[in-house]
Amino acid sequence: MPFTSETSSNGVLERNFTLDEITGVLWTPTSRTVGAPLLLAGHTGGMHKKAPGLVASALQSVTTNGYTVAAIDAPGHGDRPRNRQDQQRADAIHQALAAGEPIAPIVIEFNRSLAERAVPEWQATLDALQALPEIGVDAPVGYGGVSLGVVTGVLLAPVEPRIAAMCFGGVFVDDALVEAARRITIPVEYRIPWDDEQFDRSTAIALFDAFGSKEKTLHAHSGRHYPVPDYERDSSDRFFARHLGRAPEPASI
Amino acid sequence: MPFTSETSSNGVLERNFTLDEITGVLWTPTSRTVGAPLLLAGHTGGMHKKAPGLVASALQSVTTNGYTVAAIDAPGHGDRPRNRQDQQRADAIHQALAAGEPIAPIVIEFNRSLAERAVPEWQATLDALQALPEIGVDAPVGYGGVSLGVVTGVLLAPVEPRIAAMCFGGVFVDDALVEAARRITIPVEYRIPWDDEQFDRSTAIALFDAFGSKEKTLHAHSGRHYPVPDYERDSSDRFFARHLGRAPEPASI
Repeated sequence: MPFTSETSSNGVLERNFTLDEITGVLWTPTSRTVGAPLLLAGHTGGMHKKAPGLVASALQSVTTNGYTVAAIDAPGHGDRPRNRQDQQRADAIHQALAAGEPIAPIVIEFNRSLAERAVPEWQATLDALQALPEIGVDAPVGYGGVSLGVVTGVLLAPVEPRIAAMCFGGVFVDDALVEAARRITIPVEYRIPWDDEQFDRSTAIALFDAFGSKEKTLHAHSGRHYPVPDYERDSSDRFFARHLGRAPEPASI
Repeated sequence: MPFTSETSSNGVLERNFTLDEITGVLWTPTSRTVGAPLLLAGHTGGMHKKAPGLVASALQSVTTNGYTVAAIDAPGHGDRPRNRQDQQRADAIHQALAAGEPIAPIVIEFNRSLAERAVPEWQATLDALQALPEIGVDAPVGYGGVSLGVVTGVLLAPVEPRIAAMCFGGVFVDDALVEAARRITIPVEYRIPWDDEQFDRSTAIALFDAFGSKEKTLHAHSGRHYPVPDYERDSSDRFFARHLGRAPEPASI
């Protein structure tokens, strides 16, 4: 894995990496453990690998569960150049927001396009991460995402058997996403805001219903999309700990 | 409080009591603490104060959070004589079940009647519990219930300001219950099974939407009404710990 920088703070080592066109970041406990579970974190559209909510969850997973967490920029996001078509879509979203028009149709189409491109990038990233001695091929792997990160996860999981559990936040839902969700069979925890005018509860519930998983939970909380309540972030940690285990005791590598 | 028996096992003291017509049970840590939060537990219709699921949750609250938990038999349930009209309603439910007919309309009417009678009984029980030196008037009070216990809680909370938080399981929902739920303003966690043909998801979601609470969470889990997943029982404990606190360190009384 070609790391480009390394910093550490409060017991967490943060390393940026560049893998071909993919720009990413890896957070690990400074007391590194071999074989600790690995979380892949998918950011929302318009954000990047170090979106504040993503970083908060990642640091909590590292310090609470001893996990390793990786995030990559979606195509055209963060440190990656954006092509003309993606820029037009992003502009269209901003124009709709400014005009007070619904953004869901544009976001749904943009998310789908980005997610389809992100799937092979996540697989290449996972290959590279598993080649690291402190991760290895035996570390259980989970995936967490919000918005664009959900769409990416729903497309990724059915083609990526290495992913054993997924935790999702709110997302714009269309029929294609509902259909794709039927192919998910791993445990899912799905968290939605109940009082956010940007989200349609009924489609969120349809998405939950579609997951083909034997164990799935829907958590609806009063309030809006952001910030995520602390108790929901804690619940995600426990969800992953149930399905992926916790990190083994620290050992030198 | 007129206790009629006392046993202890695995760090939990169980005392039965009789208060006028009310028969109840109180569970406390054997390492009794003064002012530990008090949970009131409402059983399902057809069961009693020592329903298996209720006891499992109660013992976990005592051992995990150090709480005191009280349960009383609903009118005509458990150790209490049943009047002729209640017996007719109970018989009608059994007949409908045997005939494969829907029980919801009968259960809803029966629950409402029982809950209206149970509300003043819970208030009298709470008065007596708060007069105990190991509880007192300053102990935070929560309420948990399933089915009939939900209906009772929804009617109780608006007239009983001592109750600070409520955790509910599945229940048959009618318009009257939805209307009553609008008067609830304390934090609520509401847990529903997603794959139980006896429960109508859409009315469950309508009930959740109606709670007037600033903080409310809906947890839908794959599976049926019973058994409650361990992780949901753990979640209830954490919900109460967030809103009522945990027990102070043990002290002699």
